[in-house]
Formats: sequence, C-alpha cells, structure tokens
Amino acid sequence: MSTDAADAFRARTERCRNRLREVGAEALVCFPGRNLQYLTGFAKDPGERHLFLFVPADGDPVLLVPALYEAQVRTETWVEDVRVWGDGDDPLAATRAAIEDLELSDGGRLLVDDRMWARFTQDLRAACPGAEFGLASEALGPLRRRKDARELDALRRAGAVADRALERVRERGAAVVGDTERDLARRIERLLTEAGGESLAFDVIVGSGPNGAMPHHAHGDREIGPGDPVVLDFGARVDGYPSDQTRTVVFEGDPPAAFERVHEAVREAQAAAVAAVEPGVTAAAVDRAAREVIEAAGYGDEFVHRTGHGVGLDVHEEPYIVADNDRTLEPGMVFSVEPGVYLPGEFGVRIEDLVAVTEDGAERLNHTDRGWHP
Amino acid sequence: MSTDAADAFRARTERCRNRLREVGAEALVCFPGRNLQYLTGFAKDPGERHLFLFVPADGDPVLLVPALYEAQVRTETWVEDVRVWGDGDDPLAATRAAIEDLELSDGGRLLVDDRMWARFTQDLRAACPGAEFGLASEALGPLRRRKDARELDALRRAGAVADRALERVRERGAAVVGDTERDLARRIERLLTEAGGESLAFDVIVGSGPNGAMPHHAHGDREIGPGDPVVLDFGARVDGYPSDQTRTVVFEGDPPAAFERVHEAVREAQAAAVAAVEPGVTAAAVDRAAREVIEAAGYGDEFVHRTGHGVGLDVHEEPYIVADNDRTLEPGMVFSVEPGVYLPGEFGVRIEDLVAVTEDGAERLNHTDRGWHP
Repeated sequence: MSTDAADAFRARTERCRNRLREVGAEALVCFPGRNLQYLTGFAKDPGERHLFLFVPADGDPVLLVPALYEAQVRTETWVEDVRVWGDGDDPLAATRAAIEDLELSDGGRLLVDDRMWARFTQDLRAACPGAEFGLASEALGPLRRRKDARELDALRRAGAVADRALERVRERGAAVVGDTERDLARRIERLLTEAGGESLAFDVIVGSGPNGAMPHHAHGDREIGPGDPVVLDFGARVDGYPSDQTRTVVFEGDPPAAFERVHEAVREAQAAAVAAVEPGVTAAAVDRAAREVIEAAGYGDEFVHRTGHGVGLDVHEEPYIVADNDRTLEPGMVFSVEPGVYLPGEFGVRIEDLVAVTEDGAERLNHTDRGWHP
Repeated sequence: MSTDAADAFRARTERCRNRLREVGAEALVCFPGRNLQYLTGFAKDPGERHLFLFVPADGDPVLLVPALYEAQVRTETWVEDVRVWGDGDDPLAATRAAIEDLELSDGGRLLVDDRMWARFTQDLRAACPGAEFGLASEALGPLRRRKDARELDALRRAGAVADRALERVRERGAAVVGDTERDLARRIERLLTEAGGESLAFDVIVGSGPNGAMPHHAHGDREIGPGDPVVLDFGARVDGYPSDQTRTVVFEGDPPAAFERVHEAVREAQAAAVAAVEPGVTAAAVDRAAREVIEAAGYGDEFVHRTGHGVGLDVHEEPYIVADNDRTLEPGMVFSVEPGVYLPGEFGVRIEDLVAVTEDGAERLNHTDRGWHP
C-alpha cells in the first residue's frame, strides 16, 4: 500500500477511535465488508472463515486473518499488527485471544459490524460475556457520510466512467432499435469495462417502453422499438467506489404523446433539486424541491419513490433524500438526485446524477446531456 | 406457486419443525438468504429492511415482510400467514408483535439464521430478552445436507448447462488461442446463458499457463498462447441451484513437458475419489482416495487444497471433502470432487465433477470428456 493511501486509512481509523470515545465504546469489531474496506483498504466479501478487525478506542488496530489471506492483508492494508490462524488452529481460540488483548472492562461496550453474521457475533458474545453489544454504525456512520478527498476523487472518476459509457451508447442512435434490453445491457457492461470500470455497481437497468414504468425492472427480452423511451440506469466501480446515473433516451422515431411533457417535468425537477443542495439544507428539502415541480406538472402521484440515496462504498447508504429525513446536508456528502415519473403500461422517465455537497452548494459528478435525443 | 412446489416446501418446513423439537428449540427465525429460500422458495439477497420468517416448533410459519414484497411473497411462497409492515409503521414494533405470538417460554431457545446481520439479531434480542440464542444450522444443517428429489433434479439440470457450455468452448479449438482469459470468460458467460443458466454460480475461472497454477485466480488480461494448459472452472444456476465443473484443456499445440503426466495423475485421482463415494464412507476417505494417487505420482505437495465441497443452494456448503472430516456420506449429499496439481510459474491442472451420493454409490452430474484435447 502506498504511503499516501496508508496515511488516508490511518487518519480514518484515528477519527474512528475518536468517535468510539465520544459514544462511550471501548472497541469496534469489523468483519469483511464495507466497514473493513473503509478503515483498512482491504476489500473482501463476507465469508465462512473468522476474519476480524479489532479497533480499540485506545491502542492500535489488530487484524485477525486466516492464513490464506495473510500475504494479501500485509500488502493491501496499512495495519501492522496482523495475527494469523492456520489450518491446525482453532479460530475461536484465536478470536478469544485477540478479545482478551482488548482488555474490555466488565460491562464495557463493544460495537460490531451492522452486517456481521450471527455465527460470528455468537462467537464474540461467547468470548466476552460481560460486554454490552452495539452496532458499528454508531461510530462509523457520521464518518462514512462525509467523504474525504480520496473518496471524492474515486467517485468523480467512477462518474466519468459512466458518462463515457453513456455517450458511446447514445452514439449508436437508431442502431439500438431492434436490440433486446438484454443485448443493450450486455453492451453497456462492456462499455463500462472499456471505460475503466472495475465491476458493475449494480445490475444494469434498461427499461424500454412500458418496462420503463417499473422502477425495479432491470432488463429483459423485450425488443427496443422505434419511439420507445428507454430508461438507462447504470454505474461501475472505480477504486471500490460506484457511479450511478440515469438518462431516458428515445433512440429513433417519435415518442408517445405525453412523453415530452413528462420528460421536461422530470428534467426541471432534477435541476430544481440539485439547485436546492447546500450545507445546512435538510435532505427532506431536496426531496421537496423535486416533488414540487412534478406535482405542479400534474404527475405527483406518478413519482412513486424517494428523490435519492447516499452513495459511497455502498451504492445505497445515508443520507437518504426522502420526505421525512430531517438530516441536514454537510460538505462531503454524496448522493443521487433521481426524480422519475412512471405511467404504468406506457413508459417511465428518470434522470439521475450523483452530486457532492460542497462548502457552498453542490458539485455534479455526471455531466452528459440530460435531454432525450440520442 | 404450483401445488407440487408448495408440497415440497411444506414438507421441508415440517422436517424443520421436527428438528427444532429434536434439538430443544422453540422457534427458528430466518432472514433473506438461502435458508429462507430453502423453506419457502423465496429467493432474495439480504437487505436493509426487516423481513423475517418465523418457524415455531409447534404452529404455522409466519412471514413478516415490508409492503414492497407483499405481492411477491404471496405468489412465490406457500406461506399463508403473511404480515406486512408499511412505510408508516415501525418495523421493530411489527417484529415484537410477531415474536410475542411465538409465545416463547422464558429461557426458551430461539435459532437465528447463521448469516443474519447483527442489526437484526440486536432487534430480536431486544424483543425477547429472556431467550437463549442459537444458530439455524443446528436445525437445518442435517436437512440441507441431504438433497430431496426436487433439489437433485435442479442440480442435474444445472450440471447439463455447464456441460453444454464446456462442449461449445472445446468446439472452438485453436480459435481460442489469441483470446485473453477475459475474452474467453465473457464467452463462457454467454454460452452459460444460452444453455439455460439463470445466473453465474461464481466468477468464471480461466487460468491459462502460469495463471492456472494459482487456484484462486479468476481471469485476467493474459493472452492464451499455443501449448498453454487452460483451467476452465465455471457453473450456472438453474432453479436456484448451481453447477460447478472444471476441465483443463490445451486448445492448440504441445503442452509443457510435465503436463501430460500431471494431467493423467489428476484424472486418475479424480476417478479414484469418485469411485470411493458411497453411503457410510467418510468425507476424509474420499479426500484420501484422491490424495493417494497424486502422492504416488510425486505431486502430493502440489495438491494444495481440499478434494471438494458440498454444493446446494450455497456453492460451498457441507459436506467438505477434506482430510479431517469424519462425517459419513449419506444418500442425497452432493459435492464436488476436484483434485488439482499446481506448479507455480508453470501451469495448473484441475478436474472437477459434482457427484450425488446414491443408495449404493455415486452419480456424476457432469459428463463431458475429462481429457485435455479440445
């Protein structure tokens, strides 16, 4: 791991320790997942083998890993105290030993990863029967909500990857007509890879014609026809951070009668919501800014979802841009602004960019044309 | 859900209730994942919203779901008692109400999904402070290890999908030379879809030349050259059940000097291990059967992993075919038999089929040529 990267991860861990003291917890225990990645740089899906990061409020972090991962964590993380259990060892005994070194006081609070599997929390509970258990988000939530410079840089580059793929899709123009949604989704996957994406941020959405009216539709066998509005919602990860943007495009021919009016309303709503973003404003106010435009256009009942969601190592995380969220925006927060209108059996329109809250407003992370022409 | 399917899932749940009584537990709580799918047919990844299946030892199961999933669980599961919480409701209150209906006795045992997230187990603990917590596998492990007729049928069909894709890859012969591993992996993904696969069982492995010597390598930018042994390990899901097979192929030209001898040893080892499979034999004995052949050929130190793993709704599950596993095989168990030899910097060879334990031996679920010619 480079010195720069090590410094960034070490600084996050130091902020985490401060938070532990603030909330009165003695230690944090992560297992493979986004919190571990956030603190150490080590990206791994949850798995069957005992692998924990222990972060004491006072003291240096400890990584306990199966032998299989030793070489990887020594090169890919900054953590110096790496303890290894091998094939002949009892992972529970290794866990107990690491817990003992934390010297938790009786009744002391231990925060565990919100997504830690029950089989591992059971082991931790057995190893420290006197502890009170809480969730890691209590300490890490406020940190992960505000992206640091390293995270913003990755999010900008991920946004650029999605933008380039979208431009290449639009360049195909009328040639898209006759493809199935699946064909186009596979093409988008290849374009995202070619543009530098490491992996898909989520299943590519290509919602053509009436399929676009189902916000949860990914892609199917429907053939894209002339005049079909097509909802294109996709993103890719760069340095672990995802992009997430949406455009609604008519590749050839005349769209349905109501389409232009709906598209215009959604586009204005999206612009109004982005314009509302600045520090101190509530998430609810951003949602309201989008909703008011769409309600005024007469489509309030057809805007069936929230205006957006936070984006970081998780594609959906805080802050959620929803009517009842009174959380105020802070510089460094990153979220989607994605109003949509859905006319069942006809078509859907959604326009989405990621935005980062700046010191005095918002920075869009997507920059392609928001119009519906290809 | 068809009557047949409903009957199969109902029978599994009845066996689960019997197991709960056997192990002295009063109820089981699943959240989205393989256990939920096993008992109800509802396939969903874990998510942020409270969604639980409660199975009391005595009484009918209850599904508690967010409104978003109500329609889906009513059509895709056999469970009749579906309780819904909506946007205005407190999911914790809904959870408490469902827990109260279980009428757990003070100190009664509650088994929770082994992979349930800590944030949900915390809520369950708060809702029943008097309960003792255990893990679902205690009840479900013995059931899920022995596949029923419906599961075996899906596993056979998934095996056939992998076989068809492999045959189409081999048909390309020398045309594969010049492709990168990634190109070939993408082609295999398409072939699996065309053959009827619903989704990849795992990331496709294309390990060419020295990359084949790293058992955990998936695929990269290396170009496949003449004479390269290529490890091809892939599978797809059918009705939720995965396939998992491996062949090692030289698409064109002469392989490295040691290759033929290594390939022959691995092939014989695989045949010996499959021949060892029958009810009453231990998993360890199957591992030993493979290992002895490879040791006799002088490559014991280069066979660096276990001989196999159970396969069901999870691609890796019990029984693990490993030297220290004294578990005896039972009819209905399904696992991989996949010995391999890895010569760092040179090449690797692995040959893998899934096998099902029958009343008196083994049934292979993969049937393509195990030789190295394309």
